[in-house]
Amino acid sequence: MPKVLVIHGPNLNMLGMREPDVYGTKTLDEIDHMLRQDAAEMGLQLEIVQSNHEGEIIEAIQGAYERAQAIIINPAGYTHTSVAIRDALAAVRLPVIEVHLSNLWAREQWRERSVTAPVCVGVIGGFGAVSYLLALRAANSIIEKRA
Amino acid sequence: MPKVLVIHGPNLNMLGMREPDVYGTKTLDEIDHMLRQDAAEMGLQLEIVQSNHEGEIIEAIQGAYERAQAIIINPAGYTHTSVAIRDALAAVRLPVIEVHLSNLWAREQWRERSVTAPVCVGVIGGFGAVSYLLALRAANSIIEKRA
Amino acid sequence: MPKVLVIHGPNLNMLGMREPDVYGTKTLDEIDHMLRQDAAEMGLQLEIVQSNHEGEIIEAIQGAYERAQAIIINPAGYTHTSVAIRDALAAVRLPVIEVHLSNLWAREQWRERSVTAPVCVGVIGGFGAVSYLLALRAANSIIEKRA
Amino acid sequence: MPKVLVIHGPNLNMLGMREPDVYGTKTLDEIDHMLRQDAAEMGLQLEIVQSNHEGEIIEAIQGAYERAQAIIINPAGYTHTSVAIRDALAAVRLPVIEVHLSNLWAREQWRERSVTAPVCVGVIGGFGAVSYLLALRAANSIIEKRA
Amino acid sequence: MPKVLVIHGPNLNMLGMREPDVYGTKTLDEIDHMLRQDAAEMGLQLEIVQSNHEGEIIEAIQGAYERAQAIIINPAGYTHTSVAIRDALAAVRLPVIEVHLSNLWAREQWRERSVTAPVCVGVIGGFGAVSYLLALRAANSIIEKRA
Amino acid sequence: MPKVLVIHGPNLNMLGMREPDVYGTKTLDEIDHMLRQDAAEMGLQLEIVQSNHEGEIIEAIQGAYERAQAIIINPAGYTHTSVAIRDALAAVRLPVIEVHLSNLWAREQWRERSVTAPVCVGVIGGFGAVSYLLALRAANSIIEKRA
Amino acid sequence: MPKVLVIHGPNLNMLGMREPDVYGTKTLDEIDHMLRQDAAEMGLQLEIVQSNHEGEIIEAIQGAYERAQAIIINPAGYTHTSVAIRDALAAVRLPVIEVHLSNLWAREQWRERSVTAPVCVGVIGGFGAVSYLLALRAANSIIEKRA
Amino acid sequence: MPKVLVIHGPNLNMLGMREPDVYGTKTLDEIDHMLRQDAAEMGLQLEIVQSNHEGEIIEAIQGAYERAQAIIINPAGYTHTSVAIRDALAAVRLPVIEVHLSNLWAREQWRERSVTAPVCVGVIGGFGAVSYLLALRAANSIIEKRA
Amino acid sequence: MPKVLVIHGPNLNMLGMREPDVYGTKTLDEIDHMLRQDAAEMGLQLEIVQSNHEGEIIEAIQGAYERAQAIIINPAGYTHTSVAIRDALAAVRLPVIEVHLSNLWAREQWRERSVTAPVCVGVIGGFGAVSYLLALRAANSIIEKRA
Amino acid sequence: MPKVLVIHGPNLNMLGMREPDVYGTKTLDEIDHMLRQDAAEMGLQLEIVQSNHEGEIIEAIQGAYERAQAIIINPAGYTHTSVAIRDALAAVRLPVIEVHLSNLWAREQWRERSVTAPVCVGVIGGFGAVSYLLALRAANSIIEKRA
Amino acid sequence: MPKVLVIHGPNLNMLGMREPDVYGTKTLDEIDHMLRQDAAEMGLQLEIVQSNHEGEIIEAIQGAYERAQAIIINPAGYTHTSVAIRDALAAVRLPVIEVHLSNLWAREQWRERSVTAPVCVGVIGGFGAVSYLLALRAANSIIEKRA
Amino acid sequence: MPKVLVIHGPNLNMLGMREPDVYGTKTLDEIDHMLRQDAAEMGLQLEIVQSNHEGEIIEAIQGAYERAQAIIINPAGYTHTSVAIRDALAAVRLPVIEVHLSNLWAREQWRERSVTAPVCVGVIGGFGAVSYLLALRAANSIIEKRA
Repeated sequence: MPKVLVIHGPNLNMLGMREPDVYGTKTLDEIDHMLRQDAAEMGLQLEIVQSNHEGEIIEAIQGAYERAQAIIINPAGYTHTSVAIRDALAAVRLPVIEVHLSNLWAREQWRERSVTAPVCVGVIGGFGAVSYLLALRAANSIIEKRA
Repeated sequence: MPKVLVIHGPNLNMLGMREPDVYGTKTLDEIDHMLRQDAAEMGLQLEIVQSNHEGEIIEAIQGAYERAQAIIINPAGYTHTSVAIRDALAAVRLPVIEVHLSNLWAREQWRERSVTAPVCVGVIGGFGAVSYLLALRAANSIIEKRA
Repeated sequence: MPKVLVIHGPNLNMLGMREPDVYGTKTLDEIDHMLRQDAAEMGLQLEIVQSNHEGEIIEAIQGAYERAQAIIINPAGYTHTSVAIRDALAAVRLPVIEVHLSNLWAREQWRERSVTAPVCVGVIGGFGAVSYLLALRAANSIIEKRA
Repeated sequence: MPKVLVIHGPNLNMLGMREPDVYGTKTLDEIDHMLRQDAAEMGLQLEIVQSNHEGEIIEAIQGAYERAQAIIINPAGYTHTSVAIRDALAAVRLPVIEVHLSNLWAREQWRERSVTAPVCVGVIGGFGAVSYLLALRAANSIIEKRA
Repeated sequence: MPKVLVIHGPNLNMLGMREPDVYGTKTLDEIDHMLRQDAAEMGLQLEIVQSNHEGEIIEAIQGAYERAQAIIINPAGYTHTSVAIRDALAAVRLPVIEVHLSNLWAREQWRERSVTAPVCVGVIGGFGAVSYLLALRAANSIIEKRA
Repeated sequence: MPKVLVIHGPNLNMLGMREPDVYGTKTLDEIDHMLRQDAAEMGLQLEIVQSNHEGEIIEAIQGAYERAQAIIINPAGYTHTSVAIRDALAAVRLPVIEVHLSNLWAREQWRERSVTAPVCVGVIGGFGAVSYLLALRAANSIIEKRA
Repeated sequence: MPKVLVIHGPNLNMLGMREPDVYGTKTLDEIDHMLRQDAAEMGLQLEIVQSNHEGEIIEAIQGAYERAQAIIINPAGYTHTSVAIRDALAAVRLPVIEVHLSNLWAREQWRERSVTAPVCVGVIGGFGAVSYLLALRAANSIIEKRA
Repeated sequence: MPKVLVIHGPNLNMLGMREPDVYGTKTLDEIDHMLRQDAAEMGLQLEIVQSNHEGEIIEAIQGAYERAQAIIINPAGYTHTSVAIRDALAAVRLPVIEVHLSNLWAREQWRERSVTAPVCVGVIGGFGAVSYLLALRAANSIIEKRA
Repeated sequence: MPKVLVIHGPNLNMLGMREPDVYGTKTLDEIDHMLRQDAAEMGLQLEIVQSNHEGEIIEAIQGAYERAQAIIINPAGYTHTSVAIRDALAAVRLPVIEVHLSNLWAREQWRERSVTAPVCVGVIGGFGAVSYLLALRAANSIIEKRA
Repeated sequence: MPKVLVIHGPNLNMLGMREPDVYGTKTLDEIDHMLRQDAAEMGLQLEIVQSNHEGEIIEAIQGAYERAQAIIINPAGYTHTSVAIRDALAAVRLPVIEVHLSNLWAREQWRERSVTAPVCVGVIGGFGAVSYLLALRAANSIIEKRA
Repeated sequence: MPKVLVIHGPNLNMLGMREPDVYGTKTLDEIDHMLRQDAAEMGLQLEIVQSNHEGEIIEAIQGAYERAQAIIINPAGYTHTSVAIRDALAAVRLPVIEVHLSNLWAREQWRERSVTAPVCVGVIGGFGAVSYLLALRAANSIIEKRA
Repeated sequence: MPKVLVIHGPNLNMLGMREPDVYGTKTLDEIDHMLRQDAAEMGLQLEIVQSNHEGEIIEAIQGAYERAQAIIINPAGYTHTSVAIRDALAAVRLPVIEVHLSNLWAREQWRERSVTAPVCVGVIGGFGAVSYLLALRAANSIIEKRA
């Protein structure tokens, strides 16, 4: 049963409280629950990590090496700054899908630049919690094509 | 039955022939066929337009005003240059989903800037034909929430 | 009786509907009506064109060559991008007045740069429908000086 | 009887002498005379100030607070540099019309950026002395709408 | 008999009238006549298109796919802005030669950047009508090498 | 009794040793002692954290959510880079005061840009240890106004 | 009794009227009154100047040479443009504290760059009238250390 | 007897006191004395103005119109910012020589850009008081050539 | 016996697996073994740390304060972003040598900018594992000179 | 018999050896041979110089003054950097044609900027050895028009 | 008898012929003659070098080391590009005066940046041949002060 | 016996005299002596060239083609400007090691950009004369691996 690693970056543990007009009112637990339901339907195993620490995120990514089939990551604030996370994603050579709750292009201009996106398969952003569900579907379609 | 307008921008009629390593081997007809199948399942009506003309795309968008519930658009080469298409998308006040076959962030740097994305709900890119299917699903979830 | 060509660029056919807080509630027909009234008073003949197509706008401009005495143009979204319209305006060697409904300097910063303004006599922007009426008056004063 | 404050910025007292190919041959007195004639016709009271001093211009603007209905300003050389004049214009909360004799977009590139325009209603430039007359008309139309 | 598609971009139909000090006094018909003569000598078949419409130019390029052996294009005002034409040129996978009448490097600085040149074999500019004749010769030499 | 969270960013544990000509000779303990004395006088409760870890700082900020009335933060090296800390500060919706020991504007130019300042109430920098005491006073005045 | 020169830059005489959502509702007189009270408590003599004229501000600064022990300045609109004020501040070789009512980093991006800050001891901004009181306290602590 | 207007910009009245390592120990009176001596030898009449006010400098320049044969100006802090002084210099159509005491190219990078130099005959900087004497000599040689 | 601290930054624990065409096939253990051998020959004591956490790296650097004679650091992904590591390196006042496996100048352009290099003695990059051995030799030569 | 000076810039003596995938496999001797053949046919006299020395190239250009009718130059690496060669080309006032073997626009972005092109008649690049032959033809057509 | 080295950079041997509207009609010999006359009067020994070769200019500068008291250099085209000449000027530790015939600030914008000026005492430009004579006088005044 | 070409760029012949605080007190002869000793130990043959002429450096590089096994180059002032040297280095297809005496990253910002580094194997800078010895060792390790 193929495994997908889902990584929630910094401050996503505050979801629901944090600027609900930007990020929606769903909590992270609710999103994870929806993800697990959809994953079960698709026959996918999920491993879900939330961390505010760049180093922990790097190690979660490294831990997926030869153990998972795909990574879904919302690097949140690290999207725009972390070369180290980018290098980790490049190092594990897995298909990676970058997810954002909000539409980065409709906010401050510097949010439109993603350091991590160039080493991903693709990017999905702007649909709130639905972004994650679409990413899972994308991951599934990639895994199926490879299987 | 809610209607979704799908707009394929310039050169997408060349799909399958055009740089298959970048854009995949599926033709536009095949993508449209997949879209129609999924739309039928979701109870959505599709209107699909392909045009190489900026003006025609603008008019297709205007035509959706008060006649469709959402727009899925792959502005292709106009993504990076067309203020006029952006203004049209803003004018019709419908939820818009921007789609790209390839991962723009992994190509020439100027492709990472989208003129149209700031007036969209969100962006999905990098998954080939699957990008469109995810966009349809996103459109459906937006329409359902509004319904 | 001297002739003035008035060109309304892309999306101006949506006036009244489109973002009324930015562009006002007058429709294009109402503006054209006001323009025709004022033109009649000034003894000017008007030719009015609206197009969403860059190529059609270019050809409207070319058509004024040796047939009109001045051009009033609101290039709308093409203001910031169309070298081809700029070249057309330079080619016909007529006095051109650039018009904008909104104050471009009070919006997104990239709207402050006009590709077409350097080949115009002057620019009028920010006064809604009145911008056009002022432009007509400016055109008249230029034509009278030349006559 | 509504009052309009007209401010001529630095070096405009040199009009007629100064680079006549750029700024025309009309003197400032001639322009003021034309303005007063038109104002009288429109039932507007004019107060006209010329100053080469940034501080005096600021104070002229402040002086209009609750005493005038609109401001017409040609900030001349201060257009591109004076945050202090911009702040003064924002502070008095009156409709402001920025005027230029020459077409700034057809000169050195740095002249295309106006520090003051973002706090104005609109901009009129490139028509020589006529720019002022159009501005007066614009001011009148704004005042009438508010009355 | 190998075929070369020649595309004249926007405003080139105004040649002879338009800024003759920049673009020369030859009309487009005269240039086409010279081209046809030279092509006949070289045993080349010519197909010549002029359009002011970005979309038509894209479709002319697409039409050359598997029907012509080379493209000569003067994108004129679209040189500096059209990603869509660039994408079309890349899609047809034919040798493309970019031509300019004037020396773009000796004009406004932004004219030195060509969006289309990176997907061409080479660029020839500055020699007036002769630029086209040199391009034809270049096309011939490329076709011969491939034949 | 209202609570203020004080966060000392990376390398501030080296104070006194580290470049004393830039940062002064006071140790962090001495600063904390002064802060506690002043806080006691003002009737404020202090919670003081020093961390070199971006993730720990984020979590300290999150921990203040609904538990403290204000945050004083010296983000040190993270000032110029950490979007994740900025997002955390925005998420807890508390008044935040940014503090710097040195005058950032008198050092390398890139130190003048603060990623975190836009989500703070204000900034105090350049007064060595006194910067913190002024910040405490500012925090107190904000808390009093809200009480 | 040590003397502190307080300089209020352009438009600060409009305080209370001017954009109260940005600058607060306190008038300049009220701020000066609070400053004088605090100064009296600290045993400091105050000299307070407000001017809209760059030249007058320069001369106020020069006048402090060997006559005052510190300068508190809110350069307002001149913050971002006046090299001449910066040079004056550098010339008098006194400790200078730059004050701002609003948080410059949370407004237009160009407001984050201060021309004068590099020649100051430090900067305090964002706390409304309290910014001045904190600055006075900072000035006092500097003067005491020197005494 | 030809007349040369010498303008000392802001803060030059502080010469000798102000940063003597940058600007030397000579006072402005000493420099003026040297200038007058040299002018007498060359048969030139001098008019010398020092002002910290941009507006006064503009008016001094305007005053030279048809009354002086050349202008020597050290715009000091206004060198880098004053479009209004630049416009005044251009308006009087006299030969202007820009002078600097210090070598602007060896200081902060932004000091290398002069707003006024493009409308001057030439620039002399870096030689302390001698810069002025060389400028006088340059003015003399220009006047002689015109005489 | 002098001590050298060797710090391997993020993702270097993946060496051998991670993009071997860029970083070589040697594992970190193999590099450490080579380093220890060379250090023994030179009479140097080594302390080797690998961490993916910015905060841990900062603390490793701080720990070298007055305990080691030199630092060799490969900041990896943090090279281009970490002001906090830079500040730590500056704080411990030890000779630091920056090491890179790959030639940063031959990769993406943003990799050519190092935030940390300005506070190092020097930089060695591009020689794979040999970069470390050269750095050790450089450290030795610096320590000997100081001894 | 008119004379054309052909200048081959630095490293062109390495042609055939040097990066044949970029510059082709023809040696410089072979190109010169082809040039001489074509020149003979056209009745042109050729003088051919290759130099790696900027100074020698400058002097070759100067030597053409009043001795040749046109210059063909491939400035190679000096294209992007040599103001001195540009000044020499401007000084001799001859028609100059800039030639490049490769398509500079399809390589590193900084290669698209030519310092020398603005003082040339035109540019031909991307056709390998054929670029030179086209340039000779262009030179001939210019000389004939002048003859 | 103190010695001054005068260096004329590339293309100055073309003076009189080269763009006389920019550089004047005096030949280099005439300038050198004037320089020698003035030098004799001042009791200065001159060594004059003209070279088009960057390397020769570097060596001329090095040759002045401990043999001359000052250098006057017109780096011409190398002004804007030669770090190597700058380094040579810094290496000989002599007072250097940079001279230009034309006013660099009134030409193409990139000519305003001088690579060499930061290591000079000062700059004189815009006075044609007189620039050199003023530089000689400046050199003399520096030498006298040091003697 | 493998041969290494060592190239010392401009002004390195001044070593010991030139800014000893930046470049150290060792002369070039002393460095060359150290290099020859180390080379002998490693069984390497050295060819050492110093030149201030860009063209000579290019030719020294070309001369290594098929005659040397590696190049060590300190391009000095040409590091930041010479595309021609870069092209020469790329043309000879040998492993090249770029060396700098000083730490370029700790000096003026423009010194951090190297034009030549992208075509080198690696860069070593900041260790004074030791930089060369490390480079020799690096060259040796590369040659051995290839042998």
